[in-house]
Amino acid sequence: MELDYDPLKRFGRHLAAQRRSQGMSQERLALESGLARSYVSAVERGLRNVSLKNICLLAETLDVPPARLLEFSTAPGADDSA
Amino acid sequence: MELDYDPLKRFGRHLAAQRRSQGMSQERLALESGLARSYVSAVERGLRNVSLKNICLLAETLDVPPARLLEFSTAPGADDSA
Repeated sequence: MELDYDPLKRFGRHLAAQRRSQGMSQERLALESGLARSYVSAVERGLRNVSLKNICLLAETLDVPPARLLEFSTAPGADDSA
Repeated sequence: MELDYDPLKRFGRHLAAQRRSQGMSQERLALESGLARSYVSAVERGLRNVSLKNICLLAETLDVPPARLLEFSTAPGADDSA
């Protein structure tokens, strides 16, 4: 099974959008979740294959259900474009 | 940030339920997703902290959106009971 999209980039962008929609800084998301800011930054840039546990920690910090963070498009497309 | 539930156990049970609702065997899920059967078995038992990429591979194999696999209860409760 191969994916037609880059899940790391889709998740990272979606997470950043969720965070910004709440007016939360990356620093605060990191601090409140207990994750390193460098890690959160890398996740948002699609550079880290985030684990289920950390997805749930980020969701809890943003006060959304874990599933919400996976509600990104899975349509094939350019994941490298801005 | 601490979670009031065990995300690995909640995910594992939910994944197994989704798989069974489609009448798919664990062996076929493993084979079609390209993941080791021992790994899929451990994930379903809540023993592995599955990564985003593998969540998306499992979802693609089950032909559901990735978010569907995270639609488990996050209510506090006994995660060790059957």
